[in-house]
Amino acid sequence: MEKERQLIMLPGPTNVPSRVMLAMMKPMINHRGPEFSALLDTVEEGLKYVFETKEEVFVLTSSGTGTVECAISNVVDPGDKVVVPVFGYFSERLKDKVALHGGKVVEMPIEWGKAPTAEQIETTIKREGNVKLIAIVHNETSTGATVRDLPKMAEIAQENDALFMADSISILGGDHLPVDKWGIDLCVTGIQKCLACPPGLGLVSVGKRAWKVIEKKSKKPPYYFDLPSIRDHWLRKETPFTPAISLYYALDEALKMIREEGLEKRFQRHATCAKAFYAGFEALGLKPYAAEDMRSNTVITVKVPSGVDPGKVREIMKERYKVVITGGLGENRLLIFRIGCMGIISEAEVLATINAFENTLADLKNPVKLGKGIEAARKIFHS
Amino acid sequence: MEKERQLIMLPGPTNVPSRVMLAMMKPMINHRGPEFSALLDTVEEGLKYVFETKEEVFVLTSSGTGTVECAISNVVDPGDKVVVPVFGYFSERLKDKVALHGGKVVEMPIEWGKAPTAEQIETTIKREGNVKLIAIVHNETSTGATVRDLPKMAEIAQENDALFMADSISILGGDHLPVDKWGIDLCVTGIQKCLACPPGLGLVSVGKRAWKVIEKKSKKPPYYFDLPSIRDHWLRKETPFTPAISLYYALDEALKMIREEGLEKRFQRHATCAKAFYAGFEALGLKPYAAEDMRSNTVITVKVPSGVDPGKVREIMKERYKVVITGGLGENRLLIFRIGCMGIISEAEVLATINAFENTLADLKNPVKLGKGIEAARKIFHS
Repeated sequence: MEKERQLIMLPGPTNVPSRVMLAMMKPMINHRGPEFSALLDTVEEGLKYVFETKEEVFVLTSSGTGTVECAISNVVDPGDKVVVPVFGYFSERLKDKVALHGGKVVEMPIEWGKAPTAEQIETTIKREGNVKLIAIVHNETSTGATVRDLPKMAEIAQENDALFMADSISILGGDHLPVDKWGIDLCVTGIQKCLACPPGLGLVSVGKRAWKVIEKKSKKPPYYFDLPSIRDHWLRKETPFTPAISLYYALDEALKMIREEGLEKRFQRHATCAKAFYAGFEALGLKPYAAEDMRSNTVITVKVPSGVDPGKVREIMKERYKVVITGGLGENRLLIFRIGCMGIISEAEVLATINAFENTLADLKNPVKLGKGIEAARKIFHS
Repeated sequence: MEKERQLIMLPGPTNVPSRVMLAMMKPMINHRGPEFSALLDTVEEGLKYVFETKEEVFVLTSSGTGTVECAISNVVDPGDKVVVPVFGYFSERLKDKVALHGGKVVEMPIEWGKAPTAEQIETTIKREGNVKLIAIVHNETSTGATVRDLPKMAEIAQENDALFMADSISILGGDHLPVDKWGIDLCVTGIQKCLACPPGLGLVSVGKRAWKVIEKKSKKPPYYFDLPSIRDHWLRKETPFTPAISLYYALDEALKMIREEGLEKRFQRHATCAKAFYAGFEALGLKPYAAEDMRSNTVITVKVPSGVDPGKVREIMKERYKVVITGGLGENRLLIFRIGCMGIISEAEVLATINAFENTLADLKNPVKLGKGIEAARKIFHS
């Protein structure tokens, strides 16, 4: 029996369109030759479109975490004050990276499921003074909470002569994020989330204010993550080290698809699907985990109903209905379900996921009314 | 006209077998689920076979350079004395990485085209005393010179209580390298060279003596390259950060092909092809660049004959005959040709490359006798 035909409803990696998969079949080329330079040209154009920036967006052969470390280690000198709101697993990681590179972390602890607000950032930065960087997880993949007032926060950073870095790994390409307009100095993502590529490349945009800091920095970043060297090569249409060529082909194709669809339409599609997910789960009696005004359009989180074994649910959904979702991370491991609403997401995948979930609850003799989730979700698409 | 059917005779990336390319088409999976763990199982088995080690070999989503930085930054503390023989572009890079991470570099400058000997290492280590690490480029991709007495060097390191690290990026899988038997504490490679995968993953084996140093190290390595964390996850059949799943599939398939062929046969094939390359080029009047007893079986280098424009040769070979070779790096840029003899290399590719080279010389009105290179190379295969 075909075990491989699964719907991957994870908050990354996610389902990859076959056009993108097939792009990886293009033959090897010299990464120091004109074919690769031409590939970088179209990749660059696509990245500037998706990031909505005129600045350079660099591609690293690295996971998103490595790319966040790249951003941090190029601007943080030992002793620099860095404000980090901590509201989930990935913002914990961000804090650790800042500390590792010598930054003096000003931690802003926030209840998991909520996201920091601009007011909280402003209070902190005013109280602390002399803050070098505000480093924020834009969309907490571990909780499904999204920071809603990023532009206001970036403004506060600028007014206080601090840089503003966003870890937008699980959101860029799935929700509004005009990097230049919002004033984000460093914006990081991975290609396996809302861009719907296989994993393996990280992306980072670097604005003019960030370059000023990078150029004055005293401590050198890791050799592999040295942005000045990456920029020098990039301007010659090269990368300093051998790039994952096949994944560049995939990214190039994914960026073409995004331009064909258009950003606005793409964001609307994600938003509608998210709304349908929340409506469907709520109709089944599941409570959304993230605070209502901070709920992500790309990572859906709901609380595990009492009396339900989350591991069992995930296992039946995967083994019997071939739909893969995941649970929480860290302290939330057994408390929530997490579902990706990314990339190719459409009515089909939303309904298939809710249906698999309903079937699973029925299998577990849960007194759910079959079809109630589907009915509520369908209303969103057909209203 | 089909522009894409090129023979990629670069010293990496190289031609990738279609079995390996097609493996990348396998669907996305949860990198925190049982499918990925099972994939790591077979990858691990294959890596232990190719590295000829009982120790763990870790896979990083990174280029070879990043993976070398991983090895260095996990064992070198600020002020540690590190012996680095410098005999080409990549050993220069290695030196820079050691210095960046605070190591006190004891540079052993060696003429480009030659490789260090065990005697030179011994003299240096005895003179210096208190050396923490000998870090050596095993096969200088920029010059085609190979270190021939690696086991003796590792023995000297051990006798002097130093670690021994080999950057074997352009040779592992193409020539003898029994990591345990030779006593190499840290051995690094990339998958796009003799393993014939697309680029994007680096590999590093870590022996027991290296772990002792890693565990006692005071300064933390970069977050992305933290070996203790990588090991903790690896033992649970995971990676700390999202891995480049498609490239793991490619690597798994490539490792299966290597086991089907067998290491001995594979090394013999590379050695015979290298011999044929050197014989063919010498018959055409080209002098090998690397010293005779240090010539690589995986990276072939020959001097550009006087009166020949190397850029023109490479351009005609590529555009007219669809065979891609490359030139030197750094100071050698215009002085040598470099040709990969890696992965799928066989009589067919060797003869096709020499033939394209002969045709190109004839096109350039070079007084070469067409067929002389082919004749000499054929003798190697048919003797």
